Amino acid sequence: MYRNHTCGEIRMENSGSEVLLAGWVQRVRNLGGMTFIDLRDRYGLTQLVVDDQSSEQVKNVASTLGREFVVQARGIVRERSSKNPKMATGDVELHISELNVLNAAATPPFTIQDDTDGGDELRMKYRYLDLRREAVRKNLELRARMAHVVRSYLAAENFIETETPVLIGSTPEGARDFVVPSRMNPNQFYALPQSPQLFKQLLMVAGFDRYYQIVKCFRDEDLRADRQPEFTQIDCEMSYVHQEDVLNMFEGLTKNIFKEIKGIDIVDFPRMPFSEAFEKYGNDKPDLRFGMMIHELTDLVKGKEFKIFEDADYIGGICATGCGEYTRKQLDGLTDFIKKPQIGGTGLVYAKVNSDGTIKSSVDKYYSAEDLQKWAEKLDAQPGDLLLIMCGTREKTLPVISSLRLEMGRQCGLLDKEIFKPLWVVDFPLLEWNEETQRFFAMHHPFTSPKPEDIALLETDPGKVRANAYDLVINGVEIGGGSVRIFDSALQAKMFSILGFTKEAAEDQFGFLMNAFKFGAPPHAGIAFGFDRLVSMFAGLDSIRDTIAFPKNNSGRDVMNNAPSPIAQAQLDELYLKLVKPE
Amino acid sequence: MYRNHTCGEIRMENSGSEVLLAGWVQRVRNLGGMTFIDLRDRYGLTQLVVDDQSSEQVKNVASTLGREFVVQARGIVRERSSKNPKMATGDVELHISELNVLNAAATPPFTIQDDTDGGDELRMKYRYLDLRREAVRKNLELRARMAHVVRSYLAAENFIETETPVLIGSTPEGARDFVVPSRMNPNQFYALPQSPQLFKQLLMVAGFDRYYQIVKCFRDEDLRADRQPEFTQIDCEMSYVHQEDVLNMFEGLTKNIFKEIKGIDIVDFPRMPFSEAFEKYGNDKPDLRFGMMIHELTDLVKGKEFKIFEDADYIGGICATGCGEYTRKQLDGLTDFIKKPQIGGTGLVYAKVNSDGTIKSSVDKYYSAEDLQKWAEKLDAQPGDLLLIMCGTREKTLPVISSLRLEMGRQCGLLDKEIFKPLWVVDFPLLEWNEETQRFFAMHHPFTSPKPEDIALLETDPGKVRANAYDLVINGVEIGGGSVRIFDSALQAKMFSILGFTKEAAEDQFGFLMNAFKFGAPPHAGIAFGFDRLVSMFAGLDSIRDTIAFPKNNSGRDVMNNAPSPIAQAQLDELYLKLVKPE
Repeated sequence: MYRNHTCGEIRMENSGSEVLLAGWVQRVRNLGGMTFIDLRDRYGLTQLVVDDQSSEQVKNVASTLGREFVVQARGIVRERSSKNPKMATGDVELHISELNVLNAAATPPFTIQDDTDGGDELRMKYRYLDLRREAVRKNLELRARMAHVVRSYLAAENFIETETPVLIGSTPEGARDFVVPSRMNPNQFYALPQSPQLFKQLLMVAGFDRYYQIVKCFRDEDLRADRQPEFTQIDCEMSYVHQEDVLNMFEGLTKNIFKEIKGIDIVDFPRMPFSEAFEKYGNDKPDLRFGMMIHELTDLVKGKEFKIFEDADYIGGICATGCGEYTRKQLDGLTDFIKKPQIGGTGLVYAKVNSDGTIKSSVDKYYSAEDLQKWAEKLDAQPGDLLLIMCGTREKTLPVISSLRLEMGRQCGLLDKEIFKPLWVVDFPLLEWNEETQRFFAMHHPFTSPKPEDIALLETDPGKVRANAYDLVINGVEIGGGSVRIFDSALQAKMFSILGFTKEAAEDQFGFLMNAFKFGAPPHAGIAFGFDRLVSMFAGLDSIRDTIAFPKNNSGRDVMNNAPSPIAQAQLDELYLKLVKPE
Repeated sequence: MYRNHTCGEIRMENSGSEVLLAGWVQRVRNLGGMTFIDLRDRYGLTQLVVDDQSSEQVKNVASTLGREFVVQARGIVRERSSKNPKMATGDVELHISELNVLNAAATPPFTIQDDTDGGDELRMKYRYLDLRREAVRKNLELRARMAHVVRSYLAAENFIETETPVLIGSTPEGARDFVVPSRMNPNQFYALPQSPQLFKQLLMVAGFDRYYQIVKCFRDEDLRADRQPEFTQIDCEMSYVHQEDVLNMFEGLTKNIFKEIKGIDIVDFPRMPFSEAFEKYGNDKPDLRFGMMIHELTDLVKGKEFKIFEDADYIGGICATGCGEYTRKQLDGLTDFIKKPQIGGTGLVYAKVNSDGTIKSSVDKYYSAEDLQKWAEKLDAQPGDLLLIMCGTREKTLPVISSLRLEMGRQCGLLDKEIFKPLWVVDFPLLEWNEETQRFFAMHHPFTSPKPEDIALLETDPGKVRANAYDLVINGVEIGGGSVRIFDSALQAKMFSILGFTKEAAEDQFGFLMNAFKFGAPPHAGIAFGFDRLVSMFAGLDSIRDTIAFPKNNSGRDVMNNAPSPIAQAQLDELYLKLVKPE
């Protein structure tokens, strides 16, 4: 070894002993007679000292050092005269007797510090330098620790970690596949898995009983913010279980991660039906860190001359606690916020509850003080609160109120990153109607089981059928989702028919799974967690990108190693492919 | 849950209690008044009993059961009248009070037993049924346990498990890449990694210090026996280490796997230079489970009238202990064996040491009894042994003797699968001369460091330069390999020039790595283990295929889900690709 200690471990009790360190030069301070060098490695920083008593060789080498030089230093540990209580090694320093440059370094394009001067693009191009920054590396260390906790838990619960193939058949449902041309099978293509869904269900047919894998998945989508073409899932499946068994198992896993990683005991997770989540929070992933629940006011506000409300199917609002003093400008800001195209609101009615209990609203013309008091009562508003009310169709308005609720949560400082509020959202609709194609789509995927009590509705009112599907939501983020699967081939065939597959198309695309089910498929259910997102939440990041060692940018490019890139004509020829010039 | 116990856990102490099981029907025996059903799950088998005292419902259901039906059974545990000591649950049976068919099963195309009647192709097509067989599933369970042992060991040694990208830039060195067309970057391609080599070295530049990953890698090669287009490596890299540090770390890992999985303590691994391995065993992966070492006889046998030996550069042989009684037919068989095209031998000289110490050889015409005694002495032969001798060029003859040595080991029953003899083969040549292209290739890869003491030879005699490269060999199989890396960009540039890269080509292909090295690359070294092969060795299998849940066949096809397959024209259009018809 080039060292016998790391830069993070020497302490007072090492005083007087000789140690050998290796690492990067974080900083050199030349104070005339003395030179202080901060030496850094993954484990910490140690201060090296070169002074009058040092040899000429050491002094000479020290004078050549620049930032990020790789050096090896031998010396005697001694107590510092001025200690640094912020550093783990801050009580000591190393008085250098030998100093070797292992590798020189060009000046890095940005400073290797938590608070760097490097812009986003530069940091991505030199990602290997960006990863030297503790602020970035600690996210990757966290990721590794979390993976280990997950694996230990699931192994102890008898889950068999099983690798499923990366080169698979293309499945036309859902998002776009990345494809891989086969040289040995000309004009044919593998696909990269969007998830190991079919394989994990086959493992249940195979009697594996409990399967898991932390696995890369791939989606060739136009990348919106915070999506990556390759991402990682904790993918799990269990046999002979009901929905509640799965929820309990993975609630246990989640609690265990919180306990092991953050030392937090999380209480039992509430279960909330999708319909309730939509009604009270306006979406399927409620952030329970704060209240500000949505209340419907439709009946209460109707019957006056305010045409906008009169024409609306649905009127609802929230009470923003303590925001009664919002200025005109702030209120206009909220209106601007909800009118953003990605939010899609049309207008905002407000009512401030003054400290004396009177109410001032933007619709005083139409509503009496008494009317407004009723609103305040309904929304449980106190003096000093602000009521924010919107209307339209129920389906479109609730999500807008939801966005406003989250914005108010942000403005009120209620989105505490150190508070975690998980819940299970359950009873999702099985099917979603698509206006454009005039057909139903599977909300989760076509293998999701309807609730037994709703099966009759499949014939009469498919849109009403609820699924045995569930999402794990933490702080408004969907962390995981899954379902109880159909394991009966007759019911599966009916599902395909409702989804508009001809018998032939279903056979063509899912034939081998349906065939497998004929040989004794057990009842089974599963879940997949977005591992990048889970890590990002634990790290307190707003993006998944810094939980990934080598992420891609929004065009799917790795700017560091310049991928993708053109390939040689010979390789195209071997693959029996010809490029078409884009217009 | 559909059960409260598994089929592997009930014992005498459960007698009298009611349990609920679920699983597959392994076998139904109808003995008139009584029906015995063997119920199977991953955890074991339990015998269910239906008899006169059972309800009509239970009797009726029992009469409909076929092989592989999925059933749920409730009953009382009772002692068996005739116990089966071969079964973990063989002391007890379950007297059934309730029996439900959860799913019927078509008759499987082969029997779900360790000793199945299914042929290879059929078992691959119905892999999900093949995996139901304990003989197959236990290999996957072993694989999962081994992965967990590896991860626990490396995590405890401060290795950070880091996922590297699957969609990377194409590297033209080495085997052929699988490529992935990018839709967002038309006419450009990602490659799937043959190994995370560049990324793990960048992680060392990034100061990660210790990295590991159990990771899928991809190679688009014509598949010989026992190769898969996707395979799994335990991939590792360390900073601030010398070769011996790496060997000790991964010797520790390997010992730990043997200890945890097989309960075997393995003694320290010998280190053998490549030159010695080649001289004594004829290859770079000696099987040390048996002796039968190769001895050179060139000087000893030369100078007689046997022209074949006189013309040869090299003459060498082995002593097959106890094979002195081999018949003419057996000896002819050995000659046929070495003359196979894939072995490439030309002829075999033998000498039997009779029980009276006299020697009978196939070249008695040319050699006296005294001559032959000298051969026997050199090869340390005893009465009853067989000397097998070959000649030609040293480079071509030693590998043929090696093949014969292994064949004799097989014939003598010396290849015991429960004995494990690991060693490190070290000091590989850095470069290999390729006659066809008249240039040197990197034997390991172009980032492998030459031995410091051999660097001067790079200028004068590059073929003589030894590398800081090492292989872990167990029982004649290369399980892992790695090297100390070049971390100095000047030396790296020289290597590229020796390998025939122009400055531009090196820049084009490896520029970003060489650039990274300019910013302070630490000394680093690494290793990768073939995980499939390691599992296969631990499972006592001859092929890696049954260590993989869903393997591909020799044409790279998954016959179960019919991949690869054609894709839609629309998808080709989106990718700006056109198919070329193969001739």
